Amino acid sequence: MNVSEAVLRELVDLGVEVCFGNPGTSEMHLVASFDRVGGMRPILGLFEGVCTGAADGYARMAGKPAATLLHLGPGLGNGFANLHNAKRASSRMINLVGDHATYHRKYDAPLQSDIHAIAKPVSDWIGDPVSADDALAKTRQAFDIAMRPNGGLSTLIVPADIAWSEMTGIPQHHTAKAKRANSVDLKLVREAAAALRSGEPAALLIGGHAGLERPLALAAAIAEKTGARLFADTFVPRLARGRGRARPDRVPYLGEMAVMMMQGFRHAVMVGTKAPVAFFAYPNKPSTFLSPACKTYQPWDNDNDVIDVLTALAEEVGATVAPIPAAGALPDVPTSGKLNVESFGNAFAALLPEGAIVSDEAVTSGTWAQIASQSAAPHDWLALMGGAIGDGIPMAVGAAVACPGRPVINLQADGSAMYTIQGLWTAARENLHVVTVLFNNKSYGILNMELDRVGATAQSERSRSLLSLDKPVIDFTAMGRAMGASAVRVDDAGAFAMAFKRALAEPGPHLIEAMMV
Amino acid sequence: MNVSEAVLRELVDLGVEVCFGNPGTSEMHLVASFDRVGGMRPILGLFEGVCTGAADGYARMAGKPAATLLHLGPGLGNGFANLHNAKRASSRMINLVGDHATYHRKYDAPLQSDIHAIAKPVSDWIGDPVSADDALAKTRQAFDIAMRPNGGLSTLIVPADIAWSEMTGIPQHHTAKAKRANSVDLKLVREAAAALRSGEPAALLIGGHAGLERPLALAAAIAEKTGARLFADTFVPRLARGRGRARPDRVPYLGEMAVMMMQGFRHAVMVGTKAPVAFFAYPNKPSTFLSPACKTYQPWDNDNDVIDVLTALAEEVGATVAPIPAAGALPDVPTSGKLNVESFGNAFAALLPEGAIVSDEAVTSGTWAQIASQSAAPHDWLALMGGAIGDGIPMAVGAAVACPGRPVINLQADGSAMYTIQGLWTAARENLHVVTVLFNNKSYGILNMELDRVGATAQSERSRSLLSLDKPVIDFTAMGRAMGASAVRVDDAGAFAMAFKRALAEPGPHLIEAMMV
Repeated sequence: MNVSEAVLRELVDLGVEVCFGNPGTSEMHLVASFDRVGGMRPILGLFEGVCTGAADGYARMAGKPAATLLHLGPGLGNGFANLHNAKRASSRMINLVGDHATYHRKYDAPLQSDIHAIAKPVSDWIGDPVSADDALAKTRQAFDIAMRPNGGLSTLIVPADIAWSEMTGIPQHHTAKAKRANSVDLKLVREAAAALRSGEPAALLIGGHAGLERPLALAAAIAEKTGARLFADTFVPRLARGRGRARPDRVPYLGEMAVMMMQGFRHAVMVGTKAPVAFFAYPNKPSTFLSPACKTYQPWDNDNDVIDVLTALAEEVGATVAPIPAAGALPDVPTSGKLNVESFGNAFAALLPEGAIVSDEAVTSGTWAQIASQSAAPHDWLALMGGAIGDGIPMAVGAAVACPGRPVINLQADGSAMYTIQGLWTAARENLHVVTVLFNNKSYGILNMELDRVGATAQSERSRSLLSLDKPVIDFTAMGRAMGASAVRVDDAGAFAMAFKRALAEPGPHLIEAMMV
Repeated sequence: MNVSEAVLRELVDLGVEVCFGNPGTSEMHLVASFDRVGGMRPILGLFEGVCTGAADGYARMAGKPAATLLHLGPGLGNGFANLHNAKRASSRMINLVGDHATYHRKYDAPLQSDIHAIAKPVSDWIGDPVSADDALAKTRQAFDIAMRPNGGLSTLIVPADIAWSEMTGIPQHHTAKAKRANSVDLKLVREAAAALRSGEPAALLIGGHAGLERPLALAAAIAEKTGARLFADTFVPRLARGRGRARPDRVPYLGEMAVMMMQGFRHAVMVGTKAPVAFFAYPNKPSTFLSPACKTYQPWDNDNDVIDVLTALAEEVGATVAPIPAAGALPDVPTSGKLNVESFGNAFAALLPEGAIVSDEAVTSGTWAQIASQSAAPHDWLALMGGAIGDGIPMAVGAAVACPGRPVINLQADGSAMYTIQGLWTAARENLHVVTVLFNNKSYGILNMELDRVGATAQSERSRSLLSLDKPVIDFTAMGRAMGASAVRVDDAGAFAMAFKRALAEPGPHLIEAMMV
């Protein structure tokens, strides 16, 4: 058995089942090993950003890592932006990066590059094995890092000569063991509990891994019991939403609004996240949102399970999880009218099926959908975490692979879609039930807003040309069909609702190009 | 005048005319400055890899840098692979990377990342200004690095608060000054000359900036005079080819062939390049091609102009540039028959117009076209230099922007095309005369070959699925049309020739999907 096969077998033994890859020559022995290692499903992405984004979506829904298979430094570079997003999502991932044979590195061949430099900003751990046995040991380490309570990104460099070398003896197999979380620091929990119960205005802010159903319910119970106001980060990697789930306020994206909303608090307790900061700096606007008079409490760290922390906090304040009252009636399904942010949002919320997973990269077009769907059927919502656009399509692919029985709805802005449009092909090839709602507004809508917000002005065609997607307008329906999706263009609310209903009813990949007014 | 405007003005004064960009919020002041700085043309790419690849193609044809405009670390990461290719091409480029305001960095906002780490492997110089004046000084440094005799990649980080701050006083403008090349080391030249004239088997190997018309002619004269055999690197950033140009032998991609071809030499003189090495390592195959008995000579370094070096070498051996005899008759234009590597190559060579620029990412489909076109009309050939696929479409865009009067033919493999397919849109928006010949063979053809070459075997559908592009077959004709190109599918040689002739005759973007057998 060669090292490639041993590494794949070890990953399978540890519970890793899927590999999103785009290999090249240096990974060919790993590729060949898929034939001999039955438990690992290889899935081809036509660009590495699709692979890393899909692994991110997979991890958020499966709670365990997928592997990626990337071709040297440039392949890792192509995957960089979605690794950045995955790291900001506290996702779990094991990147296998093929490299030149160790003895070939010194010749500075065309594909030679500094893999460590590229990997460092997006890795919690980098392994660079020096022998066959070391490769196997580092595979286990990579898994352990990925299974840390609040996620981990491992990058395992696999030189070609190690990949093709034979193992000495039969590798010992290990059964998967989840990394045990550290016990909760009860002193910090008590301080946080005291703050929440102080009678002074207090906020409980959740993010990271605390957006899942159980921790969210605990957080809601704590807030209910103590009178604290429950917030979720502007973006949460996976948020349990819909009927029966708590409805935390979202920290607004716009700093001015966030400051207004948060300035009155005297205590802020963070679980799974840190004190909120502005996404960008703007001239004469604050970088942080909490008042200087607000005391902050962070009764957790990366080695704690947020469920343990919230359970302890709930016990300390005497809170118990109780049913959440409904948010109000669902909107009616529109049967006609203009297709805009509001009518889309209503149709979406009314038709969203139970168990749906939403991959949200709608940017400016999805604002009402988020609000309207609070009373929709229970669903999970996956957000773009690192601000690097091009995550929506791949993340939908990964979520669909992780949860074959659940429809995935990808709310997708046009500008962002063009970053990793290749992901539509993978959804088609794997016949995934992904419904891509492609909002065509012919511009980077948010940037037109941001241009004004930073105090810059651009009157002429010249500057605005960098923010518009017209001339030529992209035909996303044709793009979808070209890559194997069933695709349709709609330009009124009734047509959208009909197309959406049909796409949800029929497994396989669909694209609905929503021409927004 | 704010720093954004001052930086753009400085670049224009230095002779930089084009900026390939995909900006975000942190670059909005730079975006707004395009309105006020007339001499700089902003060109939008829908993905940063398009921008960096286009800047590479531009630099190869213009001989001077374009700027790129990239959005923080992830934007730079998206551009990484084509920066890697550009660095391997010894191209000239100035990357402007927007960053958070300096005071905002400490808050670790979602888009914060280690820009230096990402930039380092693909930059010859990184500038991180700390003030308005420093930003201007570093802009000049960035240009100086890019104008080094054998190219340079500069990365200038532009924090938002520096970009929006006002210049104190009126910035002093500088006229462009080309970086002066160091004078040639005549001792090294004499040693190289002696080796070439020794009477023992000698090779003269050129690459890098020595592929242009003048240095190539000098190299051919030297080889002719001394009896040395003239080689060009397997891949050359820009090679002058066709009638009247020298025809250096190409160092074969396949190491076994390269070793056979090069093992007999006792002396090898390299200009613009280094001793050739294998692209990848393979079990039990050599990493280098020259015999251990071969002495190597490198009478140049990065601070020399290769024309100076070759001129000195020509003088030393008494060589003068003379007309190059023709290579033989051009093939006939096929009027029917199967469309395969050979019939395509014949049609291509016969129809290639004078002054054409070829952006070559054909991989397995372009082998015969390269040979057949040796006797075609004079043209320039741009190769993928760093092995990171996804350079062909962007490079064609950049070359067309640099040379508006010359048709650009992009020979494009299907697998590689999907890496930066978004570049078709930029070609359409800018109405560039780019003819993309898209070879659809429904696979990563070269990887099926490489799989066997590395000694790996993959019998089953499982492994092969990572190398094939069928299920579903991509409709590139529809993709091209969706992004504004005039597109047509052809599946025989006569139809290809007709479509190619038509596309060459009619300015604007064309895509010909060549269904290869």
